[in-house]
Amino acid sequence: MKIRDVVLTPVAFADPPLLNVMGVHEPYALRSVVQLVCDDGVLGLGESYGDAAFLGEVRKVLPELAGQDVFDLPGLKRIVARTLAGTVLTDEHGLIGGFSIRKTIASVYSLFEVACLDAQGQALGRPVADLLGGKTRDAVEFSAYLFYKYGAHLGADEDSWGEVVTPEALVDEAKRMVGEYGFRSIKLKGGVFEPEQEIDGIRALAGAFPGHPLRIDPNAAWTPETSVRVAGELDGVLEYLEDPTPGIEGMAQVAQRANMPLATNMCVVNFGDIEPAFRARAIGVLLSDHHFWGGMRDTQALSVTCESFGVGLSMHSNSHLGISLAAMVHVAAATPHLSYACDTHWPWKTTDVIAPGALRFVDGAVPVPDKPGLGVELDQDALARAHEDYLRCGLTKRDDVTYMRKYRPGFEPNTARW
Amino acid sequence: MKIRDVVLTPVAFADPPLLNVMGVHEPYALRSVVQLVCDDGVLGLGESYGDAAFLGEVRKVLPELAGQDVFDLPGLKRIVARTLAGTVLTDEHGLIGGFSIRKTIASVYSLFEVACLDAQGQALGRPVADLLGGKTRDAVEFSAYLFYKYGAHLGADEDSWGEVVTPEALVDEAKRMVGEYGFRSIKLKGGVFEPEQEIDGIRALAGAFPGHPLRIDPNAAWTPETSVRVAGELDGVLEYLEDPTPGIEGMAQVAQRANMPLATNMCVVNFGDIEPAFRARAIGVLLSDHHFWGGMRDTQALSVTCESFGVGLSMHSNSHLGISLAAMVHVAAATPHLSYACDTHWPWKTTDVIAPGALRFVDGAVPVPDKPGLGVELDQDALARAHEDYLRCGLTKRDDVTYMRKYRPGFEPNTARW
Repeated sequence: MKIRDVVLTPVAFADPPLLNVMGVHEPYALRSVVQLVCDDGVLGLGESYGDAAFLGEVRKVLPELAGQDVFDLPGLKRIVARTLAGTVLTDEHGLIGGFSIRKTIASVYSLFEVACLDAQGQALGRPVADLLGGKTRDAVEFSAYLFYKYGAHLGADEDSWGEVVTPEALVDEAKRMVGEYGFRSIKLKGGVFEPEQEIDGIRALAGAFPGHPLRIDPNAAWTPETSVRVAGELDGVLEYLEDPTPGIEGMAQVAQRANMPLATNMCVVNFGDIEPAFRARAIGVLLSDHHFWGGMRDTQALSVTCESFGVGLSMHSNSHLGISLAAMVHVAAATPHLSYACDTHWPWKTTDVIAPGALRFVDGAVPVPDKPGLGVELDQDALARAHEDYLRCGLTKRDDVTYMRKYRPGFEPNTARW
Repeated sequence: MKIRDVVLTPVAFADPPLLNVMGVHEPYALRSVVQLVCDDGVLGLGESYGDAAFLGEVRKVLPELAGQDVFDLPGLKRIVARTLAGTVLTDEHGLIGGFSIRKTIASVYSLFEVACLDAQGQALGRPVADLLGGKTRDAVEFSAYLFYKYGAHLGADEDSWGEVVTPEALVDEAKRMVGEYGFRSIKLKGGVFEPEQEIDGIRALAGAFPGHPLRIDPNAAWTPETSVRVAGELDGVLEYLEDPTPGIEGMAQVAQRANMPLATNMCVVNFGDIEPAFRARAIGVLLSDHHFWGGMRDTQALSVTCESFGVGLSMHSNSHLGISLAAMVHVAAATPHLSYACDTHWPWKTTDVIAPGALRFVDGAVPVPDKPGLGVELDQDALARAHEDYLRCGLTKRDDVTYMRKYRPGFEPNTARW
């Protein structure tokens, strides 16, 4: 089944002022939506990053796709590699690790691979999970993704979540999120305040949610020494400690002395990082992400490497919409070695580009759609609105640092700060 | 699409008196053929080992399969694991490494996984390679598989290949095989004679086939010291040295001091072997085999682990018929990281169970069938004949040792002999 046309739509959706190591989320998060218009009226959907640099690379590939068979994924990979030869996308917001031509190709390829698999599934009348070897679970568990946050965007009214900087407010945020979605695991995005304050936050969550697995992700805000100290203080409290410190070497130092597994989506971000990280025993959990691990099939293959080395597997999330959630659910469903609940930013958004109803959370888990393909349908009106928001908001890249400086002049990113 | 009935047929096919470390091939090689009779008249085919122990395990699973969806491969794996709980198949002929419940489950599962994928492909109208992510190559390269051999089975007339024990006869055998099939890479099954004689054989091949990559596989007949010595003598002559010595530790010792990569299908035979072997840098090439690596999908995933660690990939072969060759071709076609020509015993057999024409060798490579599923069709008359041969020959397991003792009383297997 051949691709006849490709429509790429940059979109923006409202995002609350969530805090992280780099600053604060801007009023809009950017994404890209691709529609592969194929034979027989099949429309394959993909979703990925929406910054100008990524869109620029994606646009180079678009003219090469007409006539391409959606089943010829190796051919698609060759087209992307040939078209992008030499390009290295830098991730200016700095939260998903290093850069390489390999990662750039993997990211651009992934957008189209997901759309091709969606088209394949529709053409064959099978859910994407079936094309990946079949469901090992009927629903995919996600974690609550807690953020410290400001109460309002600059010049805007307070949002419904309000300001969250104290342990008490964190517990309230968690109660609402767990109450609405039924999450079991709870993750706190850290790296915002001094480690002691964040330790207090985790302890408050542990007190309020006994038995719920807890995680903290300071996005490499800590030195190895601080990381070891925090690991000691939260021993027996955390299910894993995510990216406490930068780099494979630093993580390996911490891993030797911490009792809980270390997780990462920052120091192991493509297949070239696997050997050095695994030899150094730097991590205990890999947070996979089909958006930059080269698509759904390579993410699945990655899981087998992790299993062979006794490394656990979970899933990383950037802010995303429903197409990406559907892709995450299908690949997670077809991945036996998924040892932890996956991350999702889903509760933080208020709009989407897909028709409602296809994805829902039941007890913190999303039942795998059983319709052909990804099982989600584009809402063309919602897509148009999200594209208008993209044009109106004027953002072309994520820049949490500059936005933070409007709140706190002179702010510098907290990486390895403490 | 559901399985309605399952037909398991043990078969035997004539096999020449080929020599190896364990002795000599008996007059018949055993295989099993499975037919999954599915909805809509779809017939999914699988092929694997044919010894009584394996058939016994497979037969335990058969009653559990009716009603199973061919797309639910995780469900199939659960059925096999539950049914075989606690069983460890031992491989009495000793040529494919260690034993574990994991390997037993992987082997039995593989037989049915291949048949399910064949059925899936037929139901969807797509070649199996497409279900595995698409073809990265249009044809799969194989190597010539040379054996030292006796001229005739006991009590039988000399076969058309005659006796092969001298370097000159080896070159003649290679000339016929390369001439008929167009193979580039040439592999010699060693471990039969003293290393010096086999070194002479390789040197004769190097002289007669300049530019053809050469391999020797003594099936762990040598000590680490002998292996290092042979590696030194054949430096610059071999593309890789296969299983010179037993065990990961021994292989690692040799690997440190040999200039060519070491390959194995004996010391790394399931996912549990990966971490120790890769940490020890014991091997440079993994010889995968979907029959015991848990099917086509897991074999593909294995390739990604190998690629991440810079370990090359080729494919192991037992004596086999056309269903297994088709499965090998599809999985190899969909595996980007396949760095060497695959092994096949194909030229040594004179009969098959599939209708002729689907698989052919062109310049040493088999074009990937483009029909739905595996792209091969069972010849029911040929299957019936092969089953009659199975019943008539009376063999129930492979036993090259005992058969060898009829040629050479008192023979002991050559493992680590030199």
